[in-house]
Amino acid sequence: MTKNRPKILVTNDDGITALGIRVLIAEMCKLGDVYVVAPDKPQSGKGHAITIDAILELKPQKIDGDAIAEIACTGTPADCVKLAINEVLDTKPDMCVSGINHGSNSSISVIYSGTMSAAIEAGIEGIPSIGFSLCDFSKDVDFSEAQDYVYKIAKEVLEKGLPDGVVLNVNFPKKSENPYKGVKVCRQARANWKEKFDKRMSPMGREYFWLTGEFENLDAGEDTDEYWLEQNYISLVPIQFDLTAHHMIQKLNTWKLNE
Amino acid sequence: MTKNRPKILVTNDDGITALGIRVLIAEMCKLGDVYVVAPDKPQSGKGHAITIDAILELKPQKIDGDAIAEIACTGTPADCVKLAINEVLDTKPDMCVSGINHGSNSSISVIYSGTMSAAIEAGIEGIPSIGFSLCDFSKDVDFSEAQDYVYKIAKEVLEKGLPDGVVLNVNFPKKSENPYKGVKVCRQARANWKEKFDKRMSPMGREYFWLTGEFENLDAGEDTDEYWLEQNYISLVPIQFDLTAHHMIQKLNTWKLNE
Repeated sequence: MTKNRPKILVTNDDGITALGIRVLIAEMCKLGDVYVVAPDKPQSGKGHAITIDAILELKPQKIDGDAIAEIACTGTPADCVKLAINEVLDTKPDMCVSGINHGSNSSISVIYSGTMSAAIEAGIEGIPSIGFSLCDFSKDVDFSEAQDYVYKIAKEVLEKGLPDGVVLNVNFPKKSENPYKGVKVCRQARANWKEKFDKRMSPMGREYFWLTGEFENLDAGEDTDEYWLEQNYISLVPIQFDLTAHHMIQKLNTWKLNE
Repeated sequence: MTKNRPKILVTNDDGITALGIRVLIAEMCKLGDVYVVAPDKPQSGKGHAITIDAILELKPQKIDGDAIAEIACTGTPADCVKLAINEVLDTKPDMCVSGINHGSNSSISVIYSGTMSAAIEAGIEGIPSIGFSLCDFSKDVDFSEAQDYVYKIAKEVLEKGLPDGVVLNVNFPKKSENPYKGVKVCRQARANWKEKFDKRMSPMGREYFWLTGEFENLDAGEDTDEYWLEQNYISLVPIQFDLTAHHMIQKLNTWKLNE
């Protein structure tokens, strides 16, 4: 460990061997001392799940790159962050980065995302934190164009910090022939996953379902992450974990709940 | 099904046989036609996890009470709501209620809560929705005093509706000798779970961890859910799933991310 180099915690939800986290580790090693604590298997869609009904294990390993430590964890992305802070690192990291996710975490997907939940968990612990995702689900995603931006955004966060309670959600458009046009700070689009359950029958005659769905943008605004991603911009949404709908408090006070 | 009676979806995260959901079903049957789709096993701490890597099953059953249908689901609370809306009900319910959870979901616990994630999932689908929790983890919680308030709050929501994007998080203090003082509309306290991992050794010499922790209120405000729960009031926090930290957008626009 070098003196004065920031300590950076890296995690994700696709698992410690995923290409996205390997790219992220490489970029973070240019900025500081990197500690990786990431799931030992894919944990997509796990939301902010934590493991309270089963045991957790940490498995040190060396995959590639210049991280000071790489540890696979049997738990969820949020578990990884909790274990990293409490059992792996001797002092709190200066920053936590999660990803780069294989697939979008823009708009409402932030709610279901293990990648973003890891970033939010670090934010709850008071650590400046960023989740990175690229809107392409394939295993061999082309992260080449995203790399420089990942470095630049993380460097800004290290230098400037983030206010208490704020975490960054960064999404990269799927790589096309045209280069990214830049970064747009924007808001989370109002959107929905329109579920479609694929109903099947087991060989023993038991009905079962696979969850599938299509993303549906319900937001016509030109200041949303969905809008800018479609224009080939990188979306950067500051998010918070104070879920209070402050605008609704006054209205609810007119309800007659105490009579 | 009676004409003009509202259609109410009931779910939880403690599982379909938990006392809390049985009490909730009984109260909701006074208000409308009740459909229960709830996990077949405890799903506490599952956050907003959804099942995309395994199959889901629905198991109709009859436990007690006057619900029109009771169905146990093998998935998470969010899965239950998705399956209920898409595969069980022929039209969208007029309201979704989740709980009554055995244990608090006030403050930051809303993030980890399966109970609240089910309510939020219904909110995302545009359904007026409430999560109820009682700050007592025991199996045989005394819900007797909470029942009337559950009925009253649900009735108000059925009559008045909720704005798009807002869900209610209701927490009841643990029952004491003193009756509840009433309902307080308030904001989510800034708080944290201070983790403490219980490190153990398996008979085969492998180190493992149990996640435990203590709740830590970091918020001195006298307008928070934690504050009012301590005063023996029922807390009602309107929450939202637009996580955008709008106050941070302008500041981030001063960062030099496009140079």
